[in-house]
Amino acid sequence: MAVNFPSIDPAALHPVAGVTLGWAEANIRKPNRKDVLVIRVDEGASVAGVFTQNRFCAAPVTICREHLAAGKGIRALVVNTGNANAGTGEPGMAHARETCAELARLAGLNAQQILPFSTGVILEPLPIDRLKAGLPAALANQQAAHWFDAAQAIMTTDTLPKASSRQVTIDGHVVTLSGISKGAGMIRPNMATMLGFLAFDAKVAQPVLDELVKHVADRSFNCITIDGDTSTNDSFILIASGKSSLPAITSTDSPAYAALRDAVTAVAQDLAQLIVRDGEGATKFMTVTVEGGKDAAECRQIAYAIGHSPLVKTAFYASDPNLGRILAAIGYAGVTDLDVGKIDLYLDDVLVAKAGGRNPAYKEEDGQRVMKKSEILIRVVLGRGNATATVWTCDLSHDYVSINADYRS
Amino acid sequence: MAVNFPSIDPAALHPVAGVTLGWAEANIRKPNRKDVLVIRVDEGASVAGVFTQNRFCAAPVTICREHLAAGKGIRALVVNTGNANAGTGEPGMAHARETCAELARLAGLNAQQILPFSTGVILEPLPIDRLKAGLPAALANQQAAHWFDAAQAIMTTDTLPKASSRQVTIDGHVVTLSGISKGAGMIRPNMATMLGFLAFDAKVAQPVLDELVKHVADRSFNCITIDGDTSTNDSFILIASGKSSLPAITSTDSPAYAALRDAVTAVAQDLAQLIVRDGEGATKFMTVTVEGGKDAAECRQIAYAIGHSPLVKTAFYASDPNLGRILAAIGYAGVTDLDVGKIDLYLDDVLVAKAGGRNPAYKEEDGQRVMKKSEILIRVVLGRGNATATVWTCDLSHDYVSINADYRS
Repeated sequence: MAVNFPSIDPAALHPVAGVTLGWAEANIRKPNRKDVLVIRVDEGASVAGVFTQNRFCAAPVTICREHLAAGKGIRALVVNTGNANAGTGEPGMAHARETCAELARLAGLNAQQILPFSTGVILEPLPIDRLKAGLPAALANQQAAHWFDAAQAIMTTDTLPKASSRQVTIDGHVVTLSGISKGAGMIRPNMATMLGFLAFDAKVAQPVLDELVKHVADRSFNCITIDGDTSTNDSFILIASGKSSLPAITSTDSPAYAALRDAVTAVAQDLAQLIVRDGEGATKFMTVTVEGGKDAAECRQIAYAIGHSPLVKTAFYASDPNLGRILAAIGYAGVTDLDVGKIDLYLDDVLVAKAGGRNPAYKEEDGQRVMKKSEILIRVVLGRGNATATVWTCDLSHDYVSINADYRS
Repeated sequence: MAVNFPSIDPAALHPVAGVTLGWAEANIRKPNRKDVLVIRVDEGASVAGVFTQNRFCAAPVTICREHLAAGKGIRALVVNTGNANAGTGEPGMAHARETCAELARLAGLNAQQILPFSTGVILEPLPIDRLKAGLPAALANQQAAHWFDAAQAIMTTDTLPKASSRQVTIDGHVVTLSGISKGAGMIRPNMATMLGFLAFDAKVAQPVLDELVKHVADRSFNCITIDGDTSTNDSFILIASGKSSLPAITSTDSPAYAALRDAVTAVAQDLAQLIVRDGEGATKFMTVTVEGGKDAAECRQIAYAIGHSPLVKTAFYASDPNLGRILAAIGYAGVTDLDVGKIDLYLDDVLVAKAGGRNPAYKEEDGQRVMKKSEILIRVVLGRGNATATVWTCDLSHDYVSINADYRS
């Protein structure tokens, strides 16, 4: 059901020097599937992350924050699917620590050099023994070329593995970037998708990487919504292995930083959009752009109101140009001083509403023609400033209900 | 598909002295259905209303606010279904005024004594000629006993007419209350349901009625959500005809006010809950109660996050006790200083999560047993204060998608 999901050639995912990946079938929830991933990072790399704002954040998210703050140099990431280790209280925290301790023992590291991640069902105890038992296999099959397998290993209700990769030349030096993500449901990141990992080989000072990860998340994973549910486990991690010949980037002012920032943003946008294209039950991919706002925050607020509206999403599913539902969503978005008499609404190039009312020249068959497409631009012009924001989302179909009514069954 | 929707006996809906109702089949959108309602109110009545906070409010909502402010004494309400007259710009405003002017002409009133209401599809021109042509019939069949027909005349995607009625004795005087409502979709009132009309025969001074309508809306129509979409047309109107022998209520301090307030609130809660029970595709009726909050606002915020979550709603549809989804919704509700380690979660009497984690004594079959019921209490105890809030909602089913994908087709 994924919408215009590009065919991903495993061989086109470039290895990133200084980073290896290995997986195990640990039977966390179901047998015979890759469900544990270990990413190893050579000494000297910088690692930074952004995490869910959900107050019920999962135990591993709390541990990630602790270990990144400890500053011991992150050397490995461990991910399990099938269980979110969220809503699990103190036992969940102990399990996340135990996972790190066991991987540290096996790999000769300090536990604080390890970041743990979990994704899956909330409120169930992590099967810690099966997870620990899977770690040796995930260490044994480490390879730099395993990005595609890694993308498979972090899937839950995803129907397709998600990965993106590119090489760019900065100041004459080749920089290689590869990343993976997973999503599908409970997706309205307040920080990142459920899980996104992006590695590159440029060397970046820690404070610059900390800045970069926020910049990139705000322009990629923080611009998508499937169902408006912010997960307990959202995490987005940047790994700068430092193996490229490009001199270290130590400031956000340099042209090299700008070039790297744009390349990382492009890969992260790919990864974020792949999540929407494979959204649970998705049949349409919608780009919602709000222009002419006083500030980006109000544009985002309106874009998200449209992107979350079940009525808008079902209308797109049906290819029914019931576009008043978009106006209703704009109206309840919470921008209290909005003058609706200045608002224009476009569907692709079709002007549907003009100055807050139906465009007299609008014909329903023009709306219908656009609605039948699988890629649609919803463009709102507020006429009160110069700010803009974009959100990517999908429609709401019967399959969304089926998938989420059956997820655990 | 309505959930435990009570059988409504038309004969049990008490006439309210001083109020008559009549309808027409005006072919607004579809033939052979009651789609225009006129409610007439005798001279001397007080009328008050609360309206949608949606910035894209419909033209009739703007006119209602104007006419109530004019203080000429409201003498008639006119309602059409099939077309919301919203997103219709200046022509829509002209149509709403023309409706009032025509009814004023036919009934010998001033146009400012008339409140217009519309509900139905947004962004389409109101068929003003058909609406005007229907008014004589709606005036010709006015009767005090027409509450049930009136409830039918305001239905859109509602599957059943919604009405409630009762008589109470206040200070030895009988007071009669009757009301109707409509809902079904685009229901997350920021003020009221799409349409709710409640009349009683007590005499109430205008400032007291203005206070009463807000009090009642906040405890009834403002406590429900079906899909989180706040309509452009939400309106809730109280009519105090003043024909009861009960002396006029001129202050909110009197015991008579308290008795009337509670009776009106009870009827309004009936009407609001009927909307949820007949929510589009609903198969379960859920009461979400959040207790132990610092203030009612944060309790409401959390109750609405749970009530809106598509993941929570699909889990209830499936009777799948995937209750971590409720914790996730609590966590992302936006109460930023929430200590999740103090939170308990109950499903009816089953303690699911204790102190922020799974209750060790919780057994999935206990959760499953409750989930299979059609009436379910979700109770969250925050442990940080004494405030509470309650929201009524329903599940998200395949039929919601079908109904909204097909609504106009």
